[in-house]
Amino acid sequence: MAIGPVKTDQVNLIAGIRLAAVESHIRYANRLDLVLIEIASDSTVTGVFTQNAFCAAPVRIAKQHVSQEASRYFLINTGNANAGTGTEGELAAVACCEALAAMNQSKPETILPFSTGVIGEQLPTAKIINALPALQDALAEDNWKLAAQGILTTDTRTKIASRIVGQGNSQVCITGIAKGSGMIKPNMATMLGFVFTDAQIAKPLLEEFLSTAVKRSFNRITVDGDTSTNDCCMLVATGRSAITIDDTSSESSAEFQDVLNSVFEQLATDLIRDAEGATKFIAIEVSQGASEQECLAVAYAVAESPLVKTAFFASDPNWGRILAAIGRAGVDDLDIAAVTVSLGDTKLVSNGSVDSAYEESAGQAEMDKDEIRVSINLSRGQATETVWTSDLSNDYVRINADYRS
Amino acid sequence: MAIGPVKTDQVNLIAGIRLAAVESHIRYANRLDLVLIEIASDSTVTGVFTQNAFCAAPVRIAKQHVSQEASRYFLINTGNANAGTGTEGELAAVACCEALAAMNQSKPETILPFSTGVIGEQLPTAKIINALPALQDALAEDNWKLAAQGILTTDTRTKIASRIVGQGNSQVCITGIAKGSGMIKPNMATMLGFVFTDAQIAKPLLEEFLSTAVKRSFNRITVDGDTSTNDCCMLVATGRSAITIDDTSSESSAEFQDVLNSVFEQLATDLIRDAEGATKFIAIEVSQGASEQECLAVAYAVAESPLVKTAFFASDPNWGRILAAIGRAGVDDLDIAAVTVSLGDTKLVSNGSVDSAYEESAGQAEMDKDEIRVSINLSRGQATETVWTSDLSNDYVRINADYRS
Repeated sequence: MAIGPVKTDQVNLIAGIRLAAVESHIRYANRLDLVLIEIASDSTVTGVFTQNAFCAAPVRIAKQHVSQEASRYFLINTGNANAGTGTEGELAAVACCEALAAMNQSKPETILPFSTGVIGEQLPTAKIINALPALQDALAEDNWKLAAQGILTTDTRTKIASRIVGQGNSQVCITGIAKGSGMIKPNMATMLGFVFTDAQIAKPLLEEFLSTAVKRSFNRITVDGDTSTNDCCMLVATGRSAITIDDTSSESSAEFQDVLNSVFEQLATDLIRDAEGATKFIAIEVSQGASEQECLAVAYAVAESPLVKTAFFASDPNWGRILAAIGRAGVDDLDIAAVTVSLGDTKLVSNGSVDSAYEESAGQAEMDKDEIRVSINLSRGQATETVWTSDLSNDYVRINADYRS
Repeated sequence: MAIGPVKTDQVNLIAGIRLAAVESHIRYANRLDLVLIEIASDSTVTGVFTQNAFCAAPVRIAKQHVSQEASRYFLINTGNANAGTGTEGELAAVACCEALAAMNQSKPETILPFSTGVIGEQLPTAKIINALPALQDALAEDNWKLAAQGILTTDTRTKIASRIVGQGNSQVCITGIAKGSGMIKPNMATMLGFVFTDAQIAKPLLEEFLSTAVKRSFNRITVDGDTSTNDCCMLVATGRSAITIDDTSSESSAEFQDVLNSVFEQLATDLIRDAEGATKFIAIEVSQGASEQECLAVAYAVAESPLVKTAFFASDPNWGRILAAIGRAGVDDLDIAAVTVSLGDTKLVSNGSVDSAYEESAGQAEMDKDEIRVSINLSRGQATETVWTSDLSNDYVRINADYRS
């Protein structure tokens, strides 16, 4: 069901990172469902977490731990989101951290827990704790594909992105994995991203890099307008390449940000290509807006309109639905007559109506593709934003209606 | 497909109002598609119109006309929304008004045009103008059901509400009709409401009555979160009962507002009961919020969440999805542990998790009903708001994907 070919990035190993994945039978048999990522000492670690007031126990614990100690392990389970589990859920997350810490003579606060899966059931801590020795034994530098597999839930394929920044002696690597096939799937939550580099980067700068990259990637995708209870995205710099990035104004820093952005964008768009029930991958670019904010308001109004999404599913070049969504996006004094809308290279709308040169066959040809670009020009400013989304299909309803049946 | 029994209100005729509906073959044969409502002289007329920046030609013309002259006719066509039709569409709407005005030796500005149907096609004015003489001849006081039928598009049944206010000599009547089976269906737009009373009410007070009634009815419903390009709701007071309502602080004024609210609420909820693909009618009441605004933010976040809506379709008491939607509604400093959620009389959520006394069988019994009340208590203030919505079914996707196929 996923859209477009599987990415076959050469995976660059990251010095200072070892990974493992095992089957611990949290919810299903014969499924990798427990992943451990070991982070070398003296690494810097930063993260962004869901804004949802109803955030899961592991999110609350991970946020605490990352602020208390230098993080050394990410412990990730699928099959159970440990969300809506109250105080008992927090104790369960801490118990897993304590058990792993005891094995390593370290502090529980050096471990960050992440969970994804069904909401409202207590975490089966015994299964996780029993699996920890085997998990620890399996740690290896080249287990990226296994780890990428181990964090999946309803995803139909792994998401890995890997790049090299710079050349020769100044070369550093970035490799990341992600999972999620909707912004929220509360029975099988949610979106997780883990990205690593061997560059040496101090925490304040690492936070800046992460914030910039997330803004242009995971914060620009939507499947159903819902944000998850468990979303987390972590960025780790191990420093083992002996290359330091510390000057924000330098060329190497700009290049690092660019390549990091491309890793994040690939992971984020890969989530959309694999979204629940998706049959189309849709990029919505809003240009010449007066501000970033109004570009995003328009892009999300279009991206999240059930009527626009069903039209994409039907391969229907239904410009009226797109224009109606733009019209209700809440942009002050929007002159709808100045707005143009194109599908790919085909101009669909100008002067508040269908473009005079538009031919239905051209719009139909664009709509028949499985990757579609909608370009909306507001003709009132300099801002541009792009949001990625999927269509609304029978399968989306089936998948989300059938979850607990 | 519509939910609940058809309302069989006794329709109270409104002195000063005559109605007619004919077949003019705008888009389909054998279908009433042109309605005329004649309003006695010296009536007061007020209306509210869509906020969509991309509003249809008849909306722009009706707003102009109602501000220029005392309105004497509503001319309503289905089959064509005259939206996205540019200047040519405005000229078409005016041409229909001019033709009717010429027949009555009146000004075109006394006529308000309304259109609903497919977007982006030019209005077939000749068909409408040719049908006007027969339409005018058919005007009668007791044609309410015919008019209610004549304004429908994808609706599966008529919506009429009628009430008597007061008793004996001080009695006045209110009767209204409405159409729409989604907040927007850009190929077959949209929501229209026309409500009439024989009370005598000056325009400023009539505007107040309308504003209050709309806020609690048509502005509290959502099918897909989209607002239409053609939405209009009109309130007319003919004054022919010889009863004047002029003192806003009087008991009779309060009673009139109450009964008017109930007419509006019945029409609005009837739209939801007949919403596209709906299998459930859902009332979402948010209480003890700090403000009306945050109650509405929570209610709409729940009502418009595709994941919550598909859970309703599946009759799944999926409290995690409801809680996740509440959590992302953007309420500042929301203490999720203080929130309670009930389905009907069954408490589902307390302390940020499933209620300790909850049994799945009780939640399932509530979910199996076709009319469901979700009560969300935020435990942080005095405000209460209710929003009505429908579920998200396979049929919703089918209907909206198949429209132009």
